[in-house]
Amino acid sequence: MAGLADFSSEVRAEVKQVREQVATLHEQLLKWNLVVWTAGNVSQRLRTADLMVIKPSGVRYEYLTPASMVVTDLEGNVVDGTEAPSSDTLSHAYIYRHMPDVHGVVHTHSTYATAWAATGRSIPCALTMMGDEFGGDVPVGPFELIGSEAIGKGVVDTLADHPGCPAVLMRNHGPFTIGKDAEDAVKAAAMTEEVAHTVWAAEQIGTPIPIPADDITKLNNRYKNIYGQH
Amino acid sequence: MAGLADFSSEVRAEVKQVREQVATLHEQLLKWNLVVWTAGNVSQRLRTADLMVIKPSGVRYEYLTPASMVVTDLEGNVVDGTEAPSSDTLSHAYIYRHMPDVHGVVHTHSTYATAWAATGRSIPCALTMMGDEFGGDVPVGPFELIGSEAIGKGVVDTLADHPGCPAVLMRNHGPFTIGKDAEDAVKAAAMTEEVAHTVWAAEQIGTPIPIPADDITKLNNRYKNIYGQH
Amino acid sequence: MAGLADFSSEVRAEVKQVREQVATLHEQLLKWNLVVWTAGNVSQRLRTADLMVIKPSGVRYEYLTPASMVVTDLEGNVVDGTEAPSSDTLSHAYIYRHMPDVHGVVHTHSTYATAWAATGRSIPCALTMMGDEFGGDVPVGPFELIGSEAIGKGVVDTLADHPGCPAVLMRNHGPFTIGKDAEDAVKAAAMTEEVAHTVWAAEQIGTPIPIPADDITKLNNRYKNIYGQH
Amino acid sequence: MAGLADFSSEVRAEVKQVREQVATLHEQLLKWNLVVWTAGNVSQRLRTADLMVIKPSGVRYEYLTPASMVVTDLEGNVVDGTEAPSSDTLSHAYIYRHMPDVHGVVHTHSTYATAWAATGRSIPCALTMMGDEFGGDVPVGPFELIGSEAIGKGVVDTLADHPGCPAVLMRNHGPFTIGKDAEDAVKAAAMTEEVAHTVWAAEQIGTPIPIPADDITKLNNRYKNIYGQH
Repeated sequence: MAGLADFSSEVRAEVKQVREQVATLHEQLLKWNLVVWTAGNVSQRLRTADLMVIKPSGVRYEYLTPASMVVTDLEGNVVDGTEAPSSDTLSHAYIYRHMPDVHGVVHTHSTYATAWAATGRSIPCALTMMGDEFGGDVPVGPFELIGSEAIGKGVVDTLADHPGCPAVLMRNHGPFTIGKDAEDAVKAAAMTEEVAHTVWAAEQIGTPIPIPADDITKLNNRYKNIYGQH
Repeated sequence: MAGLADFSSEVRAEVKQVREQVATLHEQLLKWNLVVWTAGNVSQRLRTADLMVIKPSGVRYEYLTPASMVVTDLEGNVVDGTEAPSSDTLSHAYIYRHMPDVHGVVHTHSTYATAWAATGRSIPCALTMMGDEFGGDVPVGPFELIGSEAIGKGVVDTLADHPGCPAVLMRNHGPFTIGKDAEDAVKAAAMTEEVAHTVWAAEQIGTPIPIPADDITKLNNRYKNIYGQH
Repeated sequence: MAGLADFSSEVRAEVKQVREQVATLHEQLLKWNLVVWTAGNVSQRLRTADLMVIKPSGVRYEYLTPASMVVTDLEGNVVDGTEAPSSDTLSHAYIYRHMPDVHGVVHTHSTYATAWAATGRSIPCALTMMGDEFGGDVPVGPFELIGSEAIGKGVVDTLADHPGCPAVLMRNHGPFTIGKDAEDAVKAAAMTEEVAHTVWAAEQIGTPIPIPADDITKLNNRYKNIYGQH
Repeated sequence: MAGLADFSSEVRAEVKQVREQVATLHEQLLKWNLVVWTAGNVSQRLRTADLMVIKPSGVRYEYLTPASMVVTDLEGNVVDGTEAPSSDTLSHAYIYRHMPDVHGVVHTHSTYATAWAATGRSIPCALTMMGDEFGGDVPVGPFELIGSEAIGKGVVDTLADHPGCPAVLMRNHGPFTIGKDAEDAVKAAAMTEEVAHTVWAAEQIGTPIPIPADDITKLNNRYKNIYGQH
């Protein structure tokens, strides 16, 4: 199998940079209370080669360093790194192969998003934040066992019916989110947990009022085209 | 359009001070768990000119500095700053134009306050802390799209029926709070989430007992006139 | 009115020590998520004189210092300090006058304890931790307005029916706890919120199983006489 | 009774190392919000002698040091240390005597796990994380008083019916977890609270979908044999 020495200096420079970015972004999973112990992972696909950088399997977040991140190709084969990659590597790879605009994938078991996933219910769009970030309900994907690319396929198939939505709640499992880079996918993971928690709480005291479809479209268009710095 | 150079040195000195205050107060939104990622903003109106200082749009809290804050006039036009201002700028500006005693505005999507907003229910006054801080129920405002001054108008119109109350839960959206300065509005945002959480929790185990109107008045008068340092 | 100069050097030395203890213990209110903004206070009664040290009114926790604590007599009159004392000073003083073994009082609005208080329900003893710390249910006290000693009287009267219990949930208001010193009362405040949260959560998924009275007695006796370092 | 001087230098070296490990692991109980004040403890059994290292009774976590940990034999007799050992020492010792592969035991009163324990309900296996970590439901053990080895016996007897499961919810009390070392048991304690919280939340918005028994077996086998670094 190819090692990193077989790639150009440009690729090796991007690997170095992305190792740092992915390692650092795991701190955001802790900061926003999205993970416990080792139960969540971040990856980013390179711009300069068909490679990705992902968390090593079962390593506590306080021990993660840029050097401990694992580089694989988009079939999940290790290209560089001394650790075994995340159990979800084949699923991250599947997503990158089938969604070429996606350069970041995040998986967590965040509490309230996973609660929706455990019941098989999608989160109804009752918040402007959901119109902004998800463009509608947050959908549920199928139940799949861990370790193969089946989860990745479940994510891709589910999002095919929800264009523009960056999150899927895999049934009985937890959320997978995507983005234009790893930071964008981490943001989607944080937002998924926040709206999961809020709509969950709303259901305990009444009925969340649905936002009409055309208002959701307006919110989503503004958020994607005007919000933020350009 | 006018730049800051067109204003007096006194105004420029206040701008410098308020940039620091507003940047620092965003840390309190994180400290009290009122925001996720970039989803909340603080502004303060100046004493020396019809200007306000507000968060830039879509910038993560750890990257906020006094220099990244944006200065606008009370129509929302940028007067000083290198970043685009918050999406909610026109609504903050509307509030300042129509409520001259207000010099601080805060918007969050804090979890439990937003849960009440999603159901369209106001928070019933069942806590002495609510009599103190809000003088009654925390009211719900209309559903409005983001980006225009419509949300600001919704806040002002709602508070017209709740004199002395510093918070409105904008339907399907989240709380807006006001104060005599930005710190005061941040305090109201923290208190709004706390009472939203507490009364929410009370409803899960029984019926919150309403506080009689005359006791609410006594609580509110004492809190506004005696509590704190004078 | 007497100033601190009228007291012995022994008293002044204890004042200095207790100012530091009480200021530092407010950090524990934050650490265990018992308070928001300024909404909680700690006091400790001296051993060497009929004086107490209490939080100043309405001051944010990050600004508290030993020097900002206020010394009052047991009628609530300020004996030393530059700030106005807590709004609850007269109630702390009432408790110290009527319960001579109590040397620490804490008041918070912690979320779940206050939720029980809002419904007027006591917390049923369904946890060994409750048998240990409270010796039974955590009782509810009457609704009283803030600012007089009425709340202190409500605490004392309620605890008269619950000997050995260090906590009262004042109706529509929040918990007051007592202890042999301020640290002990802060501990009781942390435990009150924890059991309030746990039994609240238990009620959402079933019926908390009551612990028989004689087992509660055994738990409480062991905890008070054997637990900890002696 | 024997002191540490009666043991070999190899044993004394391991004691030194395990004192540090056990003291440090208590920080993880705080990090993952598993304990309040002093209400949880960690122990580890030595490899080189029939001894264990456990938390002292009733000492606040910020004051724990390697030197304050207590060394006992597997009957709970103190062999080394200046403090009184945890109230749960006899139960930890019982577990070690009856489960020779177990070298770590953790007890907490973590909120949601204890809520299940208060109702006497086991946590149904509706999450892949539960299949992974617990191999099925998290079972409930009997109600037992604190201070004797009865709780340890309850843990051992309950786990006899749940081979491979590292957690028991002792009724009306809280979770006990086991592991191949103390870190492994702390991990199980963190995972117990997380799944307790998630399934609890799921029950508020619907019915958690059970995972079929053969899928649980596949999840558990992969997790125990493939997950992590080998």
